[in-house]
Amino acid sequence: MAATDDAYAALPAHARETHLLASTSALLAWDQETGMPSGAGDVRSRQLALLARLAHERATDPRVGEWLAVCAADPRCAADPDREPNVRCLRRDFDRATKLPPSLVAELAELESRSQQEWAVARARSDFRRFLPWLERMVALQQQKADCLRAPGQSRWDALADLYEPGMNARDLAALFGPLQRALVALRERLAGGSSPSAGFAREPVPEANQEALARAVLAAMGFDFERGRVDRSAHPFCTNTGGDVRLTTRYRPDGALDALGSAMHEGGHGLYEQGLEPVHLGTPLGEPVSLGIHESQSRFWENHVGRSAAFWQWCWPLVERHVGAAWSGRRPDDVFRAVNRVQPSLIRVEADEATYDLHVMVRFALERQLLAGELGAANLPEAWNALYRDHLGVTVPDDRHGCLQDVHWAAGLFGYFPTYTLGNLYAAQFAAAADRALGGLPGLIARGQFAALREWLRRHVHRHGRRHEPADLCRLVTGAPLSSAPFLDHLDHKLRTVYAS
Amino acid sequence: MAATDDAYAALPAHARETHLLASTSALLAWDQETGMPSGAGDVRSRQLALLARLAHERATDPRVGEWLAVCAADPRCAADPDREPNVRCLRRDFDRATKLPPSLVAELAELESRSQQEWAVARARSDFRRFLPWLERMVALQQQKADCLRAPGQSRWDALADLYEPGMNARDLAALFGPLQRALVALRERLAGGSSPSAGFAREPVPEANQEALARAVLAAMGFDFERGRVDRSAHPFCTNTGGDVRLTTRYRPDGALDALGSAMHEGGHGLYEQGLEPVHLGTPLGEPVSLGIHESQSRFWENHVGRSAAFWQWCWPLVERHVGAAWSGRRPDDVFRAVNRVQPSLIRVEADEATYDLHVMVRFALERQLLAGELGAANLPEAWNALYRDHLGVTVPDDRHGCLQDVHWAAGLFGYFPTYTLGNLYAAQFAAAADRALGGLPGLIARGQFAALREWLRRHVHRHGRRHEPADLCRLVTGAPLSSAPFLDHLDHKLRTVYAS
Repeated sequence: MAATDDAYAALPAHARETHLLASTSALLAWDQETGMPSGAGDVRSRQLALLARLAHERATDPRVGEWLAVCAADPRCAADPDREPNVRCLRRDFDRATKLPPSLVAELAELESRSQQEWAVARARSDFRRFLPWLERMVALQQQKADCLRAPGQSRWDALADLYEPGMNARDLAALFGPLQRALVALRERLAGGSSPSAGFAREPVPEANQEALARAVLAAMGFDFERGRVDRSAHPFCTNTGGDVRLTTRYRPDGALDALGSAMHEGGHGLYEQGLEPVHLGTPLGEPVSLGIHESQSRFWENHVGRSAAFWQWCWPLVERHVGAAWSGRRPDDVFRAVNRVQPSLIRVEADEATYDLHVMVRFALERQLLAGELGAANLPEAWNALYRDHLGVTVPDDRHGCLQDVHWAAGLFGYFPTYTLGNLYAAQFAAAADRALGGLPGLIARGQFAALREWLRRHVHRHGRRHEPADLCRLVTGAPLSSAPFLDHLDHKLRTVYAS
Repeated sequence: MAATDDAYAALPAHARETHLLASTSALLAWDQETGMPSGAGDVRSRQLALLARLAHERATDPRVGEWLAVCAADPRCAADPDREPNVRCLRRDFDRATKLPPSLVAELAELESRSQQEWAVARARSDFRRFLPWLERMVALQQQKADCLRAPGQSRWDALADLYEPGMNARDLAALFGPLQRALVALRERLAGGSSPSAGFAREPVPEANQEALARAVLAAMGFDFERGRVDRSAHPFCTNTGGDVRLTTRYRPDGALDALGSAMHEGGHGLYEQGLEPVHLGTPLGEPVSLGIHESQSRFWENHVGRSAAFWQWCWPLVERHVGAAWSGRRPDDVFRAVNRVQPSLIRVEADEATYDLHVMVRFALERQLLAGELGAANLPEAWNALYRDHLGVTVPDDRHGCLQDVHWAAGLFGYFPTYTLGNLYAAQFAAAADRALGGLPGLIARGQFAALREWLRRHVHRHGRRHEPADLCRLVTGAPLSSAPFLDHLDHKLRTVYAS
């Protein structure tokens, strides 16, 4: 097995170096969103393009193909519990990378950086026409990318979506999303008739420093490791892994104390996943997150199943009194619990409540398939967007800033990505139900602030596996069942009965 | 000339890509000093080592040698005013890079990052023994590096110093520094007999936010472009160019308002140099700073010839009243002018006054030559350091934190670097005298806040040339004379007579 041992030793060593380039790019992108002066954008785009080209050169090094062939020829490699998943994933990564021409990779990296900067300006001015040429160019390049990647008979959208959620395709998703969409629209219409809980008090101004202190206290209680992580602010909250540490952002508006905390808990859930990967496997498939849907399940778990529970606000109340103080005076934990669960169809995805959020995703799922297929021209996006918002959410879009310019994803080259948000919601509900059974009831743990038990359960059952299991297999391993929307709808039904009954 | 044109076109294109890797490393290093969590240090060192190796691979690409040979063979290239300096500098860079083995380059980059982190801990604890093995390893690798680079008969120190100040060698420096040292020691002893101006009021606490507002206001008046730059805080102020923008740091202590402003003006001077390079030449020798001595002349110009002038404090007074307010109440501009020019031999280089600063440099100049030559073992550094401080500055070092652990430079692999600080002081004084003649008197311009005239004079005569002229030639071009310590000693003598007369 000497030749196999050599080949197997070379593979992860090579992957680790490629990962150092990728994590360097992550730091550059983090800086672009958190502090880079506007005049530096042009050079930053070129730096990112060069790093993408270098990473792609390494990922397509013919020696990788040779090492993989040696490993594949040795049956003992397939029988080894660590080698098998590493070789399987590296094979998939290599096959994908070699399908893309280096020029396209560099061109896309540069366009992604530039087009995000252009999008930010266009969005601030609600000027879709300004962004249109960038979107058209992006769709064209994504179509090229998909055409390079797709198997015979596979759609462009499926080829791209598989990058984010291995094994996912539009047909299976449509089968899952169709009934879910009908159930959510029905729920939205049913609740529209009743009286909503009051949430106005939560818009009382809270100083930014107090919001930040509250967010940090909750993140610390969740177990986010500040020795291997940072929290900053950005226009749009995100989480990224810069190799040695994990960086979250949230945002603070005077009237947005609940939003700031919710975003921090959401990104904190992503951060715990990244910090829960095994350091010994850093830079190799066993040390990488398995899919964006599973990643999102971790953020949704903490944002919704913890942060939007009645138990959480009981536990959190001393922190609220300390950091929010007078702004919410006279209120009780139950008032906040009801406020954060108020259902109100809205224009902006990232501000949506838990019951209508997935309807926002479905709008994008429909539109990006049409854009990639060439059935919808980018110039007609606003009209199509606004029509679907009327249909799915019952709201009228007043301008493109509150419409199709609201999200950075398409400007950042992320097509086939949005549905992972809804998958994350479904996985999260199914994981939460499993954790509830395994740990003898989540509400009690949460009310007592015993977050370590939750975090360790997630680490043991989800984080530490890295890419060992395919997402669908992981779901069955963790919960004993294939992915279904039933636990999510049960969770919503159970909670909203409480919220809307009182 | 077609072959030459092709070769000449390839050279700067290649240099620009190498520069993108170098500026990416600069961002990683900036992040390491300003915000990186401690747990990320290990991966950061590996990222920097990989980027250094990739940059070195590109810099030693054999095609560069071929392109340079084609250009050298064409006499029209030597006659072209832009091609000649680019080819000359790229030839020098290529010859240097090819002398260093890739393994040493990567090993040094990783050690430099790790050893800085270790130094920070050792310094905080004043624990030289903890740092000793890192220093020993660093000296050994720097000796290897110097042995690779040096010409027959050239000393190790000279080979390294030439990286920072092309054309500089220890013999010439000793000839310049010897008389200067005697003059400065004599000045220190003379002033020790008289009565010093009062500076205690300047240690009254000033809130950090006010110090920061003052620093930003002065930087804006100097013409620092915040669209292509940032100001942050770090333990040790520095300035770096991350490619598309220039990043300064300063530091804020409640009792250190003058220090914070002085550091900001110093780093701001570096920043104006970087921002004054021609953007069209970015990444090629004509768009790079020519030497660290010239770089330092720009920081010293703003820190000392502007910031420590009586005229500056007249102009600055409304900003002082606005941002410092009550802390200095009852004081007048002249009080601050005298306070910032108080001569007081001290332990810490970066806190030294203008008249004793260079004595700190001379201690390091002597010791690093001995370390590289193998005449002084790293273990004996504290003793040798403390002896020279007694001799040059007349002070007793109480512990290594206030002694040989105070500077990051040796931990960062910078040997042969310190004398550029004194060269900067000398260049700055000679440039200031030339600007004073050319602009009809600096004090009047400074008192009226007409910094644009100063900045443009420096841009036209120094910044925009990049590496077109060798430092010694640039000095003659700008001032009409070779470098001398006379203008610096004249400047000190003139100013200190005013300060110590009143």
